[in-house]
Amino acid sequence: MQVSSIASVYAEGNFFHDNIRAKPDLDALGALGDIGWYCIRAILWASNYNLPKTAAAFPNPVKNEAGVILSCGASLHWEDGTVATFHCSFLAHLTFEVMIVGSKGTLSLSDFVIPFEENSAPFTSVSESGFKELVRGWTALPSTKVVPTELPQDARMVEEFSRLAGEIRDKGATPEKKWPVVSRKTQVVLDAVKESIDKEFKVVEIVE
Amino acid sequence: MQVSSIASVYAEGNFFHDNIRAKPDLDALGALGDIGWYCIRAILWASNYNLPKTAAAFPNPVKNEAGVILSCGASLHWEDGTVATFHCSFLAHLTFEVMIVGSKGTLSLSDFVIPFEENSAPFTSVSESGFKELVRGWTALPSTKVVPTELPQDARMVEEFSRLAGEIRDKGATPEKKWPVVSRKTQVVLDAVKESIDKEFKVVEIVE
Repeated sequence: MQVSSIASVYAEGNFFHDNIRAKPDLDALGALGDIGWYCIRAILWASNYNLPKTAAAFPNPVKNEAGVILSCGASLHWEDGTVATFHCSFLAHLTFEVMIVGSKGTLSLSDFVIPFEENSAPFTSVSESGFKELVRGWTALPSTKVVPTELPQDARMVEEFSRLAGEIRDKGATPEKKWPVVSRKTQVVLDAVKESIDKEFKVVEIVE
Repeated sequence: MQVSSIASVYAEGNFFHDNIRAKPDLDALGALGDIGWYCIRAILWASNYNLPKTAAAFPNPVKNEAGVILSCGASLHWEDGTVATFHCSFLAHLTFEVMIVGSKGTLSLSDFVIPFEENSAPFTSVSESGFKELVRGWTALPSTKVVPTELPQDARMVEEFSRLAGEIRDKGATPEKKWPVVSRKTQVVLDAVKESIDKEFKVVEIVE
């Protein structure tokens, strides 16, 4: 499997000095902590939340004068040959793309962080395509499906959080394990990428 | 700028032993030489044929028992922070994707090697998008344009080659420089990626 994700937002003006995402004493992980997080989470989602074995940061991150990351990326590697790459940047046009290529199909989402529109969620996919005779085209073409959404994903996150908190308060439920496990895995990968950046882009082992 | 390219073809059966692309004494560069070539060319096209400064291969290529690459990838780095990644594979679903993210826009092509259809060439792009108020969507959405094509790109390649050869034969023209320069640059990057694979994925300088 191959996964490729890009999250970028073109920041301007005072952002690079004044925004909390660009300050070493606030969100010190910069673009990595802000939008790289989403790429890593999407990659983990695609890989069934199996952690990669290693991470290697790309050797040319861009930092501001305070040393906060404005643009960086990494490749993540599993033992079965699966590779995921991501690139996160405050210096490139608004893009939230994840493409997943399995052995039998290809899936892509182009608005996986902030939806294009609140009432729909599009994705593009194609399965078991191949070449026509004499390679004069493809036998199946990618097609886009649009899923209608009553609420956008960020509202659904609040809804889910409220439901879980409510069940603890009102029904004596214990805390749900899924989300902290997934968040921690995301952080473990993010930390490995940061370590690779700090250690001159060497390959870093990922240990849960 | 960020560029991401994937070229994969799902091979089956005897391919891994019998195809010239899997034999060390024939196309010994395997997936890298066969379809990685297209990724690298697309990346160079996007970067105005300026060579990257360094290449670093992803540390988990897959090889067959004869040592020929079946799947690999790399990141390429320019001094201005531009990163390109590519992944080429004989082990993943048919995918020919290139996505280019500049500071002002995003462009993607999903059939840049073998066209979906011979009589058209689609691409998707969006420029200067941003978030709506309260981040309730995007101000501009990517849209797909379809360029009608009289001939598919491989036929146009033969047409161009014939034209250039004909001008030498019939009009005393000298050989066109553009294509050999571009081909050589592609090969230089490809060789750097292969060197990185052979040297345990270390970062390799690219020298023209």
